[in-house]
Amino acid sequence: MTNDRSPAGALGIGMVGHAFMGRTHSQAWRSVSAFFAPPLTPVMAVLAGRDRARTAAAAASLGWAAAVTDWKELLRRDDVGLVDICTPGDTHAEIAVAALEAGKHVLCEKPLANTVAEAEAMAAAARAARGRGVRAMVGFNYRRVPALALARRLVAAGRIGTVRHVRAQYLQDWLVDPEFPLVWRLDAERAGSGALGDIGAHIVDAAQYVTGDRLAGVTALTETFVRERPLATAAAGLAATGDGGGARGPVTVDDAALFIGRTEGGALASFEATRFATGRKNALRLEVNGSAGSLAFDFEAMNELWFHDGAEDADTAGFRRVLVTEPGHPYAGAWWPPGHLLGYEHTFTHQAADLLAAVAAGTDPAPSFDDGLQVQRVLAAVAGSAAAGGGWTPVDPPAAAP
Amino acid sequence: MTNDRSPAGALGIGMVGHAFMGRTHSQAWRSVSAFFAPPLTPVMAVLAGRDRARTAAAAASLGWAAAVTDWKELLRRDDVGLVDICTPGDTHAEIAVAALEAGKHVLCEKPLANTVAEAEAMAAAARAARGRGVRAMVGFNYRRVPALALARRLVAAGRIGTVRHVRAQYLQDWLVDPEFPLVWRLDAERAGSGALGDIGAHIVDAAQYVTGDRLAGVTALTETFVRERPLATAAAGLAATGDGGGARGPVTVDDAALFIGRTEGGALASFEATRFATGRKNALRLEVNGSAGSLAFDFEAMNELWFHDGAEDADTAGFRRVLVTEPGHPYAGAWWPPGHLLGYEHTFTHQAADLLAAVAAGTDPAPSFDDGLQVQRVLAAVAGSAAAGGGWTPVDPPAAAP
Amino acid sequence: MTNDRSPAGALGIGMVGHAFMGRTHSQAWRSVSAFFAPPLTPVMAVLAGRDRARTAAAAASLGWAAAVTDWKELLRRDDVGLVDICTPGDTHAEIAVAALEAGKHVLCEKPLANTVAEAEAMAAAARAARGRGVRAMVGFNYRRVPALALARRLVAAGRIGTVRHVRAQYLQDWLVDPEFPLVWRLDAERAGSGALGDIGAHIVDAAQYVTGDRLAGVTALTETFVRERPLATAAAGLAATGDGGGARGPVTVDDAALFIGRTEGGALASFEATRFATGRKNALRLEVNGSAGSLAFDFEAMNELWFHDGAEDADTAGFRRVLVTEPGHPYAGAWWPPGHLLGYEHTFTHQAADLLAAVAAGTDPAPSFDDGLQVQRVLAAVAGSAAAGGGWTPVDPPAAAP
Amino acid sequence: MTNDRSPAGALGIGMVGHAFMGRTHSQAWRSVSAFFAPPLTPVMAVLAGRDRARTAAAAASLGWAAAVTDWKELLRRDDVGLVDICTPGDTHAEIAVAALEAGKHVLCEKPLANTVAEAEAMAAAARAARGRGVRAMVGFNYRRVPALALARRLVAAGRIGTVRHVRAQYLQDWLVDPEFPLVWRLDAERAGSGALGDIGAHIVDAAQYVTGDRLAGVTALTETFVRERPLATAAAGLAATGDGGGARGPVTVDDAALFIGRTEGGALASFEATRFATGRKNALRLEVNGSAGSLAFDFEAMNELWFHDGAEDADTAGFRRVLVTEPGHPYAGAWWPPGHLLGYEHTFTHQAADLLAAVAAGTDPAPSFDDGLQVQRVLAAVAGSAAAGGGWTPVDPPAAAP
Repeated sequence: MTNDRSPAGALGIGMVGHAFMGRTHSQAWRSVSAFFAPPLTPVMAVLAGRDRARTAAAAASLGWAAAVTDWKELLRRDDVGLVDICTPGDTHAEIAVAALEAGKHVLCEKPLANTVAEAEAMAAAARAARGRGVRAMVGFNYRRVPALALARRLVAAGRIGTVRHVRAQYLQDWLVDPEFPLVWRLDAERAGSGALGDIGAHIVDAAQYVTGDRLAGVTALTETFVRERPLATAAAGLAATGDGGGARGPVTVDDAALFIGRTEGGALASFEATRFATGRKNALRLEVNGSAGSLAFDFEAMNELWFHDGAEDADTAGFRRVLVTEPGHPYAGAWWPPGHLLGYEHTFTHQAADLLAAVAAGTDPAPSFDDGLQVQRVLAAVAGSAAAGGGWTPVDPPAAAP
Repeated sequence: MTNDRSPAGALGIGMVGHAFMGRTHSQAWRSVSAFFAPPLTPVMAVLAGRDRARTAAAAASLGWAAAVTDWKELLRRDDVGLVDICTPGDTHAEIAVAALEAGKHVLCEKPLANTVAEAEAMAAAARAARGRGVRAMVGFNYRRVPALALARRLVAAGRIGTVRHVRAQYLQDWLVDPEFPLVWRLDAERAGSGALGDIGAHIVDAAQYVTGDRLAGVTALTETFVRERPLATAAAGLAATGDGGGARGPVTVDDAALFIGRTEGGALASFEATRFATGRKNALRLEVNGSAGSLAFDFEAMNELWFHDGAEDADTAGFRRVLVTEPGHPYAGAWWPPGHLLGYEHTFTHQAADLLAAVAAGTDPAPSFDDGLQVQRVLAAVAGSAAAGGGWTPVDPPAAAP
Repeated sequence: MTNDRSPAGALGIGMVGHAFMGRTHSQAWRSVSAFFAPPLTPVMAVLAGRDRARTAAAAASLGWAAAVTDWKELLRRDDVGLVDICTPGDTHAEIAVAALEAGKHVLCEKPLANTVAEAEAMAAAARAARGRGVRAMVGFNYRRVPALALARRLVAAGRIGTVRHVRAQYLQDWLVDPEFPLVWRLDAERAGSGALGDIGAHIVDAAQYVTGDRLAGVTALTETFVRERPLATAAAGLAATGDGGGARGPVTVDDAALFIGRTEGGALASFEATRFATGRKNALRLEVNGSAGSLAFDFEAMNELWFHDGAEDADTAGFRRVLVTEPGHPYAGAWWPPGHLLGYEHTFTHQAADLLAAVAAGTDPAPSFDDGLQVQRVLAAVAGSAAAGGGWTPVDPPAAAP
Repeated sequence: MTNDRSPAGALGIGMVGHAFMGRTHSQAWRSVSAFFAPPLTPVMAVLAGRDRARTAAAAASLGWAAAVTDWKELLRRDDVGLVDICTPGDTHAEIAVAALEAGKHVLCEKPLANTVAEAEAMAAAARAARGRGVRAMVGFNYRRVPALALARRLVAAGRIGTVRHVRAQYLQDWLVDPEFPLVWRLDAERAGSGALGDIGAHIVDAAQYVTGDRLAGVTALTETFVRERPLATAAAGLAATGDGGGARGPVTVDDAALFIGRTEGGALASFEATRFATGRKNALRLEVNGSAGSLAFDFEAMNELWFHDGAEDADTAGFRRVLVTEPGHPYAGAWWPPGHLLGYEHTFTHQAADLLAAVAAGTDPAPSFDDGLQVQRVLAAVAGSAAAGGGWTPVDPPAAAP
């Protein structure tokens, strides 16, 4: 007896980029079928990178059947039905728009783009493609942490009542050392912004996703604590080490961004994104206080959601540590028995499962490019307020749909 | 053999007010001699209140030898060497200035006053009195939480390096219920402001105390979520219940205040004070990230200080839960063996011990009225920024000392 | 107007011993009236100690009106209505029996005695005295931690169903250093046993108190890790330092005791008491798992009770961190607003309040000397099992009441 | 350019069983090459199960190239170099011995067997096979939790000194409901024992692995709280539901096992394994106290190791929460940046990586079948002591190696 997995229902994936995000997405495509029985089986068809040797090696290691050095080749291949964009933000718009126009579904890493203008073009392309049955999704993977998906469910079900406070932080510490080199993420040309777009984007999306409410305006401060750093010989990623012969270059992005604001629903919100929080490694934290309860989350304990039910008797009221690994919890039932934890990469597997389901069903996956554009507008308002020294700055409303 | 406690070295205390703060201060005066061997023994001489019967009952219960209904009587009594002011903020200036002019040492609850102008008058009176050997102290009791005193010691010793981030919150939830009555703390006339002055003042002082750095400017938002509340028949305190026959009145203070700012030392700082954080009872939280380490604190676990030492080997680095009950920790050695926790009221006993030591030594206790005035200026900047819709507002610098 | 506190309803206290326990009890007698409005007002009449100068100094510092060097004098004084015994265990029986026979109410620190025989004599004396309206109480202060009192209330109300597991630990580390001196607590003659009687007694009482169930039998192991220690020049207490000129003496008690057992109600129970748990300072921990819920407690976070309600929906089930500072929580309403924590010494104030209420009402305070005797029988079973190398040993049932 | 992954260095895997453990192992074989660059590339060749249709479906879903219904076929196939045994314990001995004799490397799930006799036969077969270059490993996956591997490293490096206390618990709650059906894990014939062998085996191995010390003897109690349960129509796993028409059958294994003991190195040890700890889902907890430090772990927060360094200054000493995701931490560097957590299944990927490395290097993987046998002897001593009502029972020493 042979395991003859039917080619019917396959979806060829072409991925661009094979650094950090390329590795997480590869693990997702590799694993999703074993746990989620998706209606479409992803086939890891081809990986695109810039360097021939390194791309080939990455393809072999990560499980891609082929490797190419020109991403445009993906648009021409019949075995690619979906283009997965895992490159820096300055390349997103060109690749995504071209892929959508070529009739390929697109999954694009966040932030959607480096500027609102690029994001608008991408969102317009996604709207146009939708009419042809082509789907686009932006990769805010933290939405797929089971605890945050559960938080959204509880808010939507009214379990915490009217939201009064949103308190979001994304704390990392990998730039504390002033000798850490000038990697691409510190270059405004390539990364768009610093902590703001890289991790601030995540907490803006997470807060809006969980509450179902959007930021109406902000007042902001940003800072670059270390303004020059050693040049990186190969600006390959977080782990790059400086070896530029002592030369230094300017950091052109923010090290930290703080902003407070009001939501359309009338809540007060506080945000902080920083790469200088010594000892905090990946502390994406969110607390939401409502008139009838509260929720709290910290990614460094990502399997836990803390829930306070205001309706509890005072004798036994308290924040509950909900271990979000029960069969009925979002995504958790696909994996292991209760108490057997999930990790970071699972969020990408969940993202893949949701995207495959949407493509198969002919529905729009979330978050859409419009959602990504809206986050971009928040980031632009933050940057604008900070540039002006902290004044109130409304978030541009979305243009009316055509 | 009789316990003949010498009257030499006694300091008569006259206290004004016997509500929440009056009770904490009474416990401090009652207990301090048993644990701290102060150079002056406080004698609980006389309690002043407005209502004769209630004041007499309070004096009997709390251990005061006499009760009076006019605080001015304290200034005339020879058995009163120190006036302890535990009344609402609108009365602080009059009592404190009069007491200082009468040659009485003064301990005044925070916030120092309801306005900068009043606070300036008080600080001027304190400066004048100092020349006559009369001492003044403002009661920011949280400085005397052993964990926060230890935090200051560690920052001062350079254990966390240059401060980059201050993250302070004071979260309570006693106003979540819209039927909670209109107590005096919700009346701008008496309380000055709402969450801002009541609990925001504490985190401003705590953050500045721990870091030894001061806020240079802020941008702020405030909100009053519930704008009308039932009239309280007796606006006696937190526990008052509405019974005003259905009548309602306006809440004239803020329910919540958020502000972000920069310190004189170049750090970014974030503050949030709210009475609408459902499930958080008295969560005075402070996190400080420096170039060489971090500290974190939450009053709801007040015996713990979390310390991350950036110099640790990466293998074993992590936030340490320091149980601040060791003999060498601030104040802790006076009490019990390690691991035997202290509570809220102990902060007032520590305050009394420090004040008695300063009076006996003829030195200035801290925090001074000038410190209280500086906090008042921060609150004024916050209120000003919020009133203007969130613009950048510098904190007024202190006037040059005469 | 003068605070004329009525002498009617006063109860004179005579205390024996002024070391660690003497200090906690003094603070309780000094504070109880200000918070609990007891029907009898305790008057701190006289302190008995061995050394004249040290006793006088202690009396002055702790607030006792007089000092004596012979505890028998307390029995003869009319101004002493209650004798409070804060001495080492080898003296409990003689003092307590004499005091009860002299018609004085008695509060006796735990463990009730060093042997079952002594405890039986004390319990018999207490039963006899009860007929004359004289009350006796043993001081298991941890019962008066609000969180543990709440735990008992929840178990009694059926909130966790049938108890299946009891898991109790009392972890300290003050003997880890082999140079710590040979204080009286390490001498079997004076202390009776080591970790077993000192801290093991507390977790036996706490577990039985919370569950309302009793140990039926045990199997046990004990160990003395460091068998010789420097002689203490003044075996005054925990803080004593060795200065015996290099001489060493034998440790004659256990450093650690482990035992597992079954309760009369059919639960399995596990106990561990040790002074060698490096880094644990006063970790009295208790977890109880029932058919319908669970409870967990750690004294190092003594204001928190963790409660899991098995009836919760799986989506939001989890251990709740109940901050036991609400007005309706045991003892908490007498103190401060929610979230304002209590400390170690408050347990003794609660004990004093309960004892005064019982004396005034003419009812029996709990825990009784019979309760103390039963704990002594558990300790004897543990010691017997350990001496026999770990065999099953039933706990002797109480003799039938006469 | 095509990704031509070389067949050189491949190792064909044949797996038996496709329930819970089959799924975890499949994910490990599928993922290991992308993260660990193993010297041998595993090829998921063939899956053996009992039911043709279910096995074929599992193979397709889990990524196995072929499916068979007779495990003996694996021994005859040239494309199988390693047999991975994921079946209940009563089948381990037969399959493992046959596979080893057929020259196949073997990975066998724990517990090694249901009896000491079977385990001895397996260990003998492994020793014989080793001489022929054939490797055998038993699957105690929790050793590969990075935090526990780090704990072992710290103990081995002397960071906690001489071990005094081991405190291990494995708490689950899936049997609390008396209507949970009689699955195979509750049948002594198939499972050998209950909580003892299923989860007790894990904490015995984890404790011995971390400390490098072995249990010398124990005294034990076990209990079956619910002695009859509904018959399961398909005793397929944890999720099975009773549907046996109301019929019930006897539970023939323990629900909970408690034991205390002494290690060869002189430490005291406490163990508890239960499926009745309401609210605890997979709480494998281990605390080790040494003369110079302590370590604590809870699998429900599996990315954290708590470390107390006794050499720290008392001012800043405390248990540190080490987030075990740093590049230098065991296994962690192969995955994601710091603070990006790992999950349960990663332990199996680590196990696969270590096994592939050992097979390629021609060295013995750990834990060996002899290690598995030793754990079996501990379990036998526990069962023996419990059967005798709790007496001291030495663990049989290993027979001298031939």
